Amino acid sequence: MVGKLITFEGSDGAGKTSVMNEVVRDFQQQLGDQMLVTREPGGNKISEQIRRIILDRANTEMDYRTEALLYAAARRQHLVETILPALTAGKLILCDRYVDSSVAYQGAGRQIGMQEVAKMNEFATEKLLPDRTIYFDIPVEVGLKRIAQHRDANQIDRLDVETTAFHRRVHQGYMKLIAANRDRFIRIDATQPIETVVENTKKVIRQIAGEFFNEES
Amino acid sequence: MVGKLITFEGSDGAGKTSVMNEVVRDFQQQLGDQMLVTREPGGNKISEQIRRIILDRANTEMDYRTEALLYAAARRQHLVETILPALTAGKLILCDRYVDSSVAYQGAGRQIGMQEVAKMNEFATEKLLPDRTIYFDIPVEVGLKRIAQHRDANQIDRLDVETTAFHRRVHQGYMKLIAANRDRFIRIDATQPIETVVENTKKVIRQIAGEFFNEES
Repeated sequence: MVGKLITFEGSDGAGKTSVMNEVVRDFQQQLGDQMLVTREPGGNKISEQIRRIILDRANTEMDYRTEALLYAAARRQHLVETILPALTAGKLILCDRYVDSSVAYQGAGRQIGMQEVAKMNEFATEKLLPDRTIYFDIPVEVGLKRIAQHRDANQIDRLDVETTAFHRRVHQGYMKLIAANRDRFIRIDATQPIETVVENTKKVIRQIAGEFFNEES
Repeated sequence: MVGKLITFEGSDGAGKTSVMNEVVRDFQQQLGDQMLVTREPGGNKISEQIRRIILDRANTEMDYRTEALLYAAARRQHLVETILPALTAGKLILCDRYVDSSVAYQGAGRQIGMQEVAKMNEFATEKLLPDRTIYFDIPVEVGLKRIAQHRDANQIDRLDVETTAFHRRVHQGYMKLIAANRDRFIRIDATQPIETVVENTKKVIRQIAGEFFNEES
């Protein structure tokens, strides 16, 4: 049996990570070892070292293409060390962010170009795309307000210090990705109460990965 | 005036760096500030941080594509911080290794594929190629023997610990690059005595960057 890769995407403040935590807690009992929950850099040593360079606020002179290449390098190592072994082992993998994040954030947000970033990332992924991608949709302003409420000043890293215009471009980037990949993306309204978002997300995952849940019934 | 970029390439043990040092010493008086001598990572903070990850012997689990992406990231930052400003300032830039090294070492040596590595690197360089590339040619066995003689055991980094088969593939990679870029590459026989190699290199540089030397006459 070959596994299944579902990725979670969304603009900042969409509540993606909180929802994932709730969903995973509920699925854990049922799926146990059959489920792997991960996100880049995913705890592997090399990707963590790379991540440290990206997020270091002292690295203000970092060029946007350098940043995109570093994300791709960390992605590659996470793919090889974590995702591919789990896919081979037949697991259901829930991954918080993947290539689409780079295409939206670096390609559209940083204005490198979505196509260019997507192509470069094919070197990192050898064109492995997720089976399905769940997109947590929220208006840019609502997302940014949520972030401002939830974070302390000392928690803020280099990437948070971005303009509203940047976040607007990221959002537009995601809209283009969804339009171009309608078979892969599933959109969930993230402005609803978190309980509703969690229920909708669980329903969607049961639909697209039914084989993992039917074993239980 | 726009500057000129000359890169130096060669298999390990070709004596490339020693020759460069001699050439630079002789040209320094004449050219002064008009010449920039550099090599990746080139002393910039971010590229040095990246380089440290690549060369860390403890990182044995590093995937070859991760390695290639990290080299490209360090290259990008060096390009932006060092090479492009010098080109804009109209300087003669002598750079020890550039994209061709990645295509030969990662593409051919690591067997990722030369085309794939070259294409990915276009993201890093935005297709900026050197004006000319000087290739120091030496048979693989001769080069490896030189390395063995000149290095202490504790100087050896992760990249030195490679098989002869690897170095043979790198050499073949360079041969293909030269065949495909005859207008750009200039081959220098690096088996000759170092004084001869230095003289030949100086002659070649004077020919291809005559405008920098004519100012003196």
